[in-house]
Amino acid sequence: MSWTRKDLIGLKDLKREEIETILNTADSFKEILTREVKKVPTLKGWTVANLFFEPSTRTRISFELAAKRLSADTINVSGSFSSVVKGETLLDTAKNLRALVCDIIVLRHSMAGAPELLAGALPDMGIVNAGDGMHEHPTQALLDMLSIRDRLGGLDGVKVLIVGDILHSRVARSDIWGLSKMGADVSVCGPLSLMPRGIEEMASVYTDLDEAIGGKDVLIFLRIQKERQESGLFPSLREYHRLYGMTDDRLKRLRRRVLLMHPGPVNRGIELTPRATESDHSIILNQVTNGVAIRMAVLYLISTVLSGLRRT
Amino acid sequence: MSWTRKDLIGLKDLKREEIETILNTADSFKEILTREVKKVPTLKGWTVANLFFEPSTRTRISFELAAKRLSADTINVSGSFSSVVKGETLLDTAKNLRALVCDIIVLRHSMAGAPELLAGALPDMGIVNAGDGMHEHPTQALLDMLSIRDRLGGLDGVKVLIVGDILHSRVARSDIWGLSKMGADVSVCGPLSLMPRGIEEMASVYTDLDEAIGGKDVLIFLRIQKERQESGLFPSLREYHRLYGMTDDRLKRLRRRVLLMHPGPVNRGIELTPRATESDHSIILNQVTNGVAIRMAVLYLISTVLSGLRRT
Amino acid sequence: MSWTRKDLIGLKDLKREEIETILNTADSFKEILTREVKKVPTLKGWTVANLFFEPSTRTRISFELAAKRLSADTINVSGSFSSVVKGETLLDTAKNLRALVCDIIVLRHSMAGAPELLAGALPDMGIVNAGDGMHEHPTQALLDMLSIRDRLGGLDGVKVLIVGDILHSRVARSDIWGLSKMGADVSVCGPLSLMPRGIEEMASVYTDLDEAIGGKDVLIFLRIQKERQESGLFPSLREYHRLYGMTDDRLKRLRRRVLLMHPGPVNRGIELTPRATESDHSIILNQVTNGVAIRMAVLYLISTVLSGLRRT
Repeated sequence: MSWTRKDLIGLKDLKREEIETILNTADSFKEILTREVKKVPTLKGWTVANLFFEPSTRTRISFELAAKRLSADTINVSGSFSSVVKGETLLDTAKNLRALVCDIIVLRHSMAGAPELLAGALPDMGIVNAGDGMHEHPTQALLDMLSIRDRLGGLDGVKVLIVGDILHSRVARSDIWGLSKMGADVSVCGPLSLMPRGIEEMASVYTDLDEAIGGKDVLIFLRIQKERQESGLFPSLREYHRLYGMTDDRLKRLRRRVLLMHPGPVNRGIELTPRATESDHSIILNQVTNGVAIRMAVLYLISTVLSGLRRT
Repeated sequence: MSWTRKDLIGLKDLKREEIETILNTADSFKEILTREVKKVPTLKGWTVANLFFEPSTRTRISFELAAKRLSADTINVSGSFSSVVKGETLLDTAKNLRALVCDIIVLRHSMAGAPELLAGALPDMGIVNAGDGMHEHPTQALLDMLSIRDRLGGLDGVKVLIVGDILHSRVARSDIWGLSKMGADVSVCGPLSLMPRGIEEMASVYTDLDEAIGGKDVLIFLRIQKERQESGLFPSLREYHRLYGMTDDRLKRLRRRVLLMHPGPVNRGIELTPRATESDHSIILNQVTNGVAIRMAVLYLISTVLSGLRRT
Repeated sequence: MSWTRKDLIGLKDLKREEIETILNTADSFKEILTREVKKVPTLKGWTVANLFFEPSTRTRISFELAAKRLSADTINVSGSFSSVVKGETLLDTAKNLRALVCDIIVLRHSMAGAPELLAGALPDMGIVNAGDGMHEHPTQALLDMLSIRDRLGGLDGVKVLIVGDILHSRVARSDIWGLSKMGADVSVCGPLSLMPRGIEEMASVYTDLDEAIGGKDVLIFLRIQKERQESGLFPSLREYHRLYGMTDDRLKRLRRRVLLMHPGPVNRGIELTPRATESDHSIILNQVTNGVAIRMAVLYLISTVLSGLRRT
């Protein structure tokens, strides 16, 4: 096992061996999720604080269930934390959580870099990035990798296409870093107005989806923020679906073993049609289950490091 | 014991023996609630998701406490579940909860039939109806039956009068189905504008409360939705109280052993006066305690069926 | 041990020995908070209901964590409890919580006297005052005392100055009662418009902070409610800071061992500058940790009395 970090900030920083450690640990936790008693006493007496400044019930529930299945106590602190409203800074809030004897903070924040800030300032707490601005969302990318590995047996040489709003997506950023390190061959596809500068150094870039799909093993569709349309970044939802969506027509032409993925929740009929979402190609619900296993693994690995730090 | 269902949708479907099984199981759980350690490990490692699309803190807390006393983990998902807001369908949300490895969904929804929809679509999850539209609210009727049985020793031949807005009440519907199956003699009383069509085939119908009360053993007052008044369905709250409320005057004339019940919370001075609510006739708070026991029983019975399904 | 109360309403009522019992019990619980498994089975099977009619995430989380570390189940009922909205009285809500088989209610309410009302009406439940109107906030004062005792070895003869809006502060009221009983010498300082009548019988009164600081061992700064300014009770926030804040200038002149305290959250740059908040004088975060220990002690002591009551 190769894990020495008290925090998980992003996949850009991780070595291939570290990613493998997380994936393998998650695999062993997945077995627990199939038992009748889906619970182990691993983190009994530990407290995990979910500190969410952006609303995301799905990610929060996934972390909460992961913590509970390790027997940790959890508290949820939302952006309406009165202290936050009362003008307390992020760092003050985190220091208060430490003083309340919480062990690990799961942080969702609109500001890129917020988790790193806390990680540096709190040497005896674990910080898990649950999404920071347009920067990273590492557990989402890890569950994506676990889901691909489950189906295809590995990641090395797998051809992955990420479709949609690459520019604003922390999921895309983490996926590209993580998958590339694991030896996958990553391409992106979307309107040029939604491509970040310099993306061609990290991935092959397509603007035509039908051309891009050719030869790919995995298609990850990103959730479109409907608000972007008002900013004129893409023409209309119908047009977006026609150009960059998994239409029923494209679904019919898909090679047999191609996987369809989406971080959820799907805008039905926009990124994917209902038929595509429920087809045999889709592993979207497997991603959800793997999300719990990945978060159990991350919380567990971090706890082993914190335990070591505290003993010294 | 006679229980083979993985879901509790409504009392219309249940056989008398099944209702008895729930009531008897609840009785055995009531003993636990009087212990110093009010907890049993029965559902350790199980996860119960409270999925409430209508706000109802009381019912949600009752289910949450029932689950915790069986040592289950609980998560609360309210109508503000971001995925729901983001356009996910009810079924998508439920499938996501299954993918998050939840075992039982307790569903409150404004659409009649929503729990049945989930029950059919999710063959390996348990669904408990916590109130669906104007259809059923089975655990409320079960706790009503348990409360009557506690006091009167049985339900067979007991004369029950349900008073108020029968038309819009899922509680009335479940009470009528359940009580009738158990051999009780059910009548209803209220303004004709608040009576459903065909009700006379299920219960004796009164419009005069003083006449209706004669010879009854149990009076169940339904909560009036003040909004109905604006729709002109009854004249004024004062007039409603005079005609269909338990006034202090009616209270004085009540026979000694008549029971007063209400699903709560009471509109004080409308359905019942404060004096009636706190009188010896009132078993409203016993109903609340029995609600926890009934919900423990339902969660437990469903878990035994799910366990069996999973082993095969 | 000297503890016979089923409720904690305020420090005005407590004897010195009772306060000492709480502080000593909290000391023994603090040890648990430093363990790897920060949890004891003391209150397993007990249910603590946090009933908060005013928002206060910090105090609520502190009580919630205290209860969880004693292995109690917790439920949070906020002012948006639908029953409360639907016009249920405070007492009805509390009686419903008792009927749901909760054991202890932690109550935050804007009405002075609300906890005492519940304590009298519910002879078999424990009531903990988590702040009632402008009356008392006893656990805050207890954690203040524990924090001072930790640093200075005792409370007898310690010179404490409370600075700010004494008039509207339940914290000040509880601090004055508690500290005086423990033999501390309490003074207050603030604008005369923010001093309650008759305060001079309970504490020495200053209006000049620089004069007041002389010879004091502990300075407790109260949080200013910015709304008060609009009522004309003090001139401006800048002026308030200059006259009654811990400025960097005053910080420099502070004697070495003087302690700075604040109930949190600090209005940065108003009651204290960021430098003062983070200086070696500040024990603000120790107060937060001691808050959990004090609340564990209070819940535990009350549970011993309730257990006794129930056995008889």
